[in-house]
Amino acid sequence: MSATETYARTDRTTGRRRDRMSYDRAAVHAVIDEALVCHVGFVDEDGQPHVVPTIPWRVDDTLYVHGAKASRLMKVMASGAPVCITVALLDGLVLARSAFNHSMNYRSVMAYGRCVAVEDPEEKARILAPLSDKLVPGRAQAARWPNAKELAATAVVGLALDEVALKARSGPPKDDAEDMDHPVWAGVLPLRLTAGTPEPDAALAPGITAGMPQGA
Amino acid sequence: MSATETYARTDRTTGRRRDRMSYDRAAVHAVIDEALVCHVGFVDEDGQPHVVPTIPWRVDDTLYVHGAKASRLMKVMASGAPVCITVALLDGLVLARSAFNHSMNYRSVMAYGRCVAVEDPEEKARILAPLSDKLVPGRAQAARWPNAKELAATAVVGLALDEVALKARSGPPKDDAEDMDHPVWAGVLPLRLTAGTPEPDAALAPGITAGMPQGA
Repeated sequence: MSATETYARTDRTTGRRRDRMSYDRAAVHAVIDEALVCHVGFVDEDGQPHVVPTIPWRVDDTLYVHGAKASRLMKVMASGAPVCITVALLDGLVLARSAFNHSMNYRSVMAYGRCVAVEDPEEKARILAPLSDKLVPGRAQAARWPNAKELAATAVVGLALDEVALKARSGPPKDDAEDMDHPVWAGVLPLRLTAGTPEPDAALAPGITAGMPQGA
Repeated sequence: MSATETYARTDRTTGRRRDRMSYDRAAVHAVIDEALVCHVGFVDEDGQPHVVPTIPWRVDDTLYVHGAKASRLMKVMASGAPVCITVALLDGLVLARSAFNHSMNYRSVMAYGRCVAVEDPEEKARILAPLSDKLVPGRAQAARWPNAKELAATAVVGLALDEVALKARSGPPKDDAEDMDHPVWAGVLPLRLTAGTPEPDAALAPGITAGMPQGA
């Protein structure tokens, strides 16, 4: 783990809205740990940007993503090309009296750098286990673990968290004084990604509880 | 509205996983209409990719985003630089018997092109109204509408939907035959962005119902 509690601010991680920026390591980690989706941006040989969603996870101070070794995203990331990985969590709609002051409550991590591919099979397995446990606690232990062929077909790349910022908004709407009497509902509509009732596979034998999500 | 029901496939919108790709216009529109977050990818003068989350909305066959005219994102988009806008909805975790066959159910739109800024104030107001109504039906009518100064400070840019693809997965896990007896829970954990109890602003006068979100 890193010795400092904050990431160093750079030109790229200096937001125009200074009041919304944070470089707190624990707060950045918490966003990555909660998120089930991140968006990886990379540039192709024609200078065209691409943005691909995938699941992020974290081990110590590195953000990992994985995928089929044959996929373009994994090839680009493993090549060490510059990337921007954004991890955004939506916390609510901010409904102000004026349309102009409407906003959203959110926490969004932006990380810059170049990824490094995890090549050693043992290290790859060690890094992948917390991904399964992120989906359902205990899942890495309960699921049938990848064999050598599957591990070889899976690319794992890590972005060391170094040039990172968290942008966030929270709290109630901020209306202009002259709008406070406008007769419209104002406040926050909180939003959250929630799990529904688990849907067992049709072929699942009854009574199996290992690696089961809550509520199944 | 467009005459054809599908977008033309291009090299950039041809996924490696052909079984997951769709070019159906109505399905693409449905994803944009449901999503409260999209991720805009652009490239800076140093060739560095950036990925910025923002709220998307749609009018006819154009995806719009907005922001402060002074923001970098809006300046880049209004300049007509090449962008990739990705709109991803997470529908569930797919828990297979083997760790390798774990997956996610999702719908993800990827749109390529160059944006055009909406400059005319009347057109800008016409385009912004459905954004407010996307947050809460009736909100555009109920909120205090932007004045000329606010409209001028708001940049609205549109990406004509032309080079677009939808990538999606749905349904149960697909395990290898030899894993079917592995004693682990298997199935889908559905996920959904859900609204909690609305939190009225501290200064809200009682009895106001105009533009109120459901459950307030």
